[in-house]
Amino acid sequence: MGKTLVIGAGGVSHAAVHKMAMNADIFTEITLASRTKSKCDDIAKSVKERTGVDIRTGQIDAMDVAATVALIKETGAELLVNLALPYQDLKLMDACLEAGCHYLDTANYEPEDEAKFEYSWQWAYQDKFKQAGLTAILGSGFDPGVTSVFAKWLKKHKLDTIRQIDILDANGGSNDQAFATNFNPEINLREVLQTAHHWEKGKWPATKAMTHKVAFDFPGIGERNMYLMYHEELESLVTHFPEIERARFWMTFGDAYIMHATVLENVGMTRIDPVMHDGKEIIPIQFLKTLLPDPGDLGEETTGKACIGDIVTGQAKDGSGEKTYYIYNICDHEECFREVGSQAVSYTTGIPAMIGAAQFFKGNWREPGVWNMEQLDPDGFMDMLNHHGLPWQVHELDGPVEF
Amino acid sequence: MGKTLVIGAGGVSHAAVHKMAMNADIFTEITLASRTKSKCDDIAKSVKERTGVDIRTGQIDAMDVAATVALIKETGAELLVNLALPYQDLKLMDACLEAGCHYLDTANYEPEDEAKFEYSWQWAYQDKFKQAGLTAILGSGFDPGVTSVFAKWLKKHKLDTIRQIDILDANGGSNDQAFATNFNPEINLREVLQTAHHWEKGKWPATKAMTHKVAFDFPGIGERNMYLMYHEELESLVTHFPEIERARFWMTFGDAYIMHATVLENVGMTRIDPVMHDGKEIIPIQFLKTLLPDPGDLGEETTGKACIGDIVTGQAKDGSGEKTYYIYNICDHEECFREVGSQAVSYTTGIPAMIGAAQFFKGNWREPGVWNMEQLDPDGFMDMLNHHGLPWQVHELDGPVEF
Repeated sequence: MGKTLVIGAGGVSHAAVHKMAMNADIFTEITLASRTKSKCDDIAKSVKERTGVDIRTGQIDAMDVAATVALIKETGAELLVNLALPYQDLKLMDACLEAGCHYLDTANYEPEDEAKFEYSWQWAYQDKFKQAGLTAILGSGFDPGVTSVFAKWLKKHKLDTIRQIDILDANGGSNDQAFATNFNPEINLREVLQTAHHWEKGKWPATKAMTHKVAFDFPGIGERNMYLMYHEELESLVTHFPEIERARFWMTFGDAYIMHATVLENVGMTRIDPVMHDGKEIIPIQFLKTLLPDPGDLGEETTGKACIGDIVTGQAKDGSGEKTYYIYNICDHEECFREVGSQAVSYTTGIPAMIGAAQFFKGNWREPGVWNMEQLDPDGFMDMLNHHGLPWQVHELDGPVEF
Repeated sequence: MGKTLVIGAGGVSHAAVHKMAMNADIFTEITLASRTKSKCDDIAKSVKERTGVDIRTGQIDAMDVAATVALIKETGAELLVNLALPYQDLKLMDACLEAGCHYLDTANYEPEDEAKFEYSWQWAYQDKFKQAGLTAILGSGFDPGVTSVFAKWLKKHKLDTIRQIDILDANGGSNDQAFATNFNPEINLREVLQTAHHWEKGKWPATKAMTHKVAFDFPGIGERNMYLMYHEELESLVTHFPEIERARFWMTFGDAYIMHATVLENVGMTRIDPVMHDGKEIIPIQFLKTLLPDPGDLGEETTGKACIGDIVTGQAKDGSGEKTYYIYNICDHEECFREVGSQAVSYTTGIPAMIGAAQFFKGNWREPGVWNMEQLDPDGFMDMLNHHGLPWQVHELDGPVEF
C-alpha cells in the first residue's frame, strides 16, 4: 500500500522491519536508515534470509533535518517510522513537515540533558500537522502504545467511563548476564531512576524511584515484585480520558536489577551531565552503555515470558454498575527469537510499530494532526495484534485492585 | 638530621609530611613534589598553619627518571620517600640509584596493566642498591609495614619461631557517602578484587575475592565481618620467616561495600584495560575514580576507629611451649583529623612512613640493600609508634585462632 522510511537500527527496528517485510502487501517498499549503515545492512541481510524481501538501507544523522528531508524525498516515503532515540523525535517531525511525510514513533520526546518525559513538545506540533494535512501517530509501541489501545478498546466496548487504570509491565525473562537492561541501557536507566509520579485526583504525587513495590501474580509468569514508576502514557491517558481518578504504571524488577541500578546511581554512573575525565567530557550513563551488553545481542540466550496489560475499573456500558477488567498479552522470548531474531522486549515494541503503521496505510488512522493511541479507533489494531504475534486476552476481575 | 624529598601529594602524603614537620629535628629540610603542584602547596599551607614549618614544593612526573634525578640533586635530598602510585616505584628506584639517594616506599610495585602484587621486581634491585651503598626500605606503611614490624618484634622478644600468622585489618569508620573507598579507589579496588591467595604449607591456595568471610570481635570496634584477601606482606613474611606454615590476611568490609564492589565488577567498571568510547580509550577503573569521592576529602566527616594487628602463634622463647599473641593498634578517625587533618586510613599509612624514614636518619636502618620491614630491627620503630600517635598493645591469647 505504501512506501515506508524507518529510522533507527536497534532491537525494536530489527523486530519491526522483519514484520513489515512479512506484510509486503502493506509495506510495499521499505527503506531503513540509521547513523551506522552497517547495522541497517545486518538487519536487511536477516530480513532477506528470513522473508526473501529486499529492503533498501542508508546512512542518516537523525538530527540533520535537511539530510532527512532529502532522504524522504529520494525514497518517496509516505510514512516515516521513527525507531531512533527519543532525543531525535522533534527533528524528525520537523523533517516530515518540510518533506510532506506522515510520522509515527514509539516513545515521546525528551531533551538529552534532562530525564524528563512529557508530551508538551510534541503536542505543540498539532496545528502544524493539521495545516499540512499530515498525520503524526505518537507512541505506537507496547507501553506506550498497546496499553493505550487496550484502554480505548475497553472504553469502546465494555466501559462508559474509566475511574482507575493500572498498567502492569512484567518481564519474566532471564539471561546469563549479571546485569543487562531490557532495552537501550541509557534510555532504560534514565526512565527507571526518575521520580515515580502517578495520577491521583488531579495531582501527580511523587514517590522515590524503585521504592514502592507490590508483589503480583502475573499470568504466564507467576509472582513478581513490581515497582511504581512514571511512564509517559499516564500523561496522555488522563488528558484524553479526563474522568480518570487514578492512573499508575508498574514494572517488575528483580532484586539483582534493583541492586545494580542503585549502586550505579550511588557512584554517579547514571549521571547524564558531562564529567571531565583525562581532559575530555564523558557522560557517565553513555560510558555505562558502552560497557554493558547490547540488549539486542541477548535474544539468543533469553528465556521466559513477558506479560504487559491494563487493569481498568469503570462503569459498565450495560448499566450493571462498576466493573474491573484485566486485558493483557503474554509474549514468549524464545518464540519471538525464533520468528524474527529478537527477544520479547524488542518484539513487543516493534510489532505494534508495524501495526500502527499498517493502520495508517489501511486508512484507519489517517486524520491530519498529532495523535496519541487512545485517540484512535482500536478495532483494526486489536485485530492485527491477534494475527501478528501479540494475541491478547481480557478477563473480568472480582473488583478493583487492592494494592 | 637530614634532607627529605617526598613524592606524591595524596592523603598518605598529607599525614606523613605533617608528622615529619612535627619532628623537625630529624627532618631538617622537606621538599614535597607531585604531578600537581597545587596539591603540594595545599599540604604546605596546612603544615605551615599547624606547625609553623616551611616546606618546599615542586612539580614532578614520577615516571620521568631524568627529571627526578635533577630534583634530587637540586634539593640535596638524602632520602626519597615515595608516596606516589605503586606503578611508579621502579622509576623512582632508578632515579635514586642514578642520583645516589636512599629510598623508602609504602607499597610494592605493580604493573599498571595487570593487578599483580609481588616483590620480584623490587627485590631484583638488591645488588644494585648494595653496590651503590644505598638503602631501600620497602613497604613502610601500616600494612605492609607495621604488621611486619609487629611480627619481627614478637620474633625478637617473645617467640623463637612463627608457625602461623593472621593479619587483621579492620576499619570501623563511617562517613556520609553511599560508597567511598578508604584510599585511592583505583588502587583499593584492584587490591580487593584480586583472587584471595594465602600461604599454607608451601603453597598459595586461591579463593574467589570477597567470598571467605569470618566474623571477628575487634578491640575498640566490636564484631565485624572480615574477608580473606591477598596482601603483599604475606610474600615477604614467608620468604624471610621460612618456618611459617600458614599466613593469611583479612580485611573488614561492610555489606554495602561488598555490594558496590560486586556490582561495579559485574558491569565492567573495575576493568583496568582500555575500552573504546566515543573515539577515545577510557580505562573504566580510572573513570570510576574520577566519579567517586576523593578519600582525602572525607576526613572531616569520618568517625569511628580502625584496628590493625597480627595474631601470631609459635614456640615461646622461654621454653613454655606454643604461645599465641595478638598485637595491634587502635586508631581513632576523629583524633587523627584533629591532629593532622587526615582520617585514620591515611594516618596509619603516613605515620609509619615518617617513622621508617626516621629510623633511616637515626642510623638504625641504614645497611645498603633492599629491605622489607621484618628484616630490620624493630625496637626503635616500635618505640616511635608509641610516641607518635600509633600506640600498640600486645596480649597473649588462650590458643591459636579457630577460624
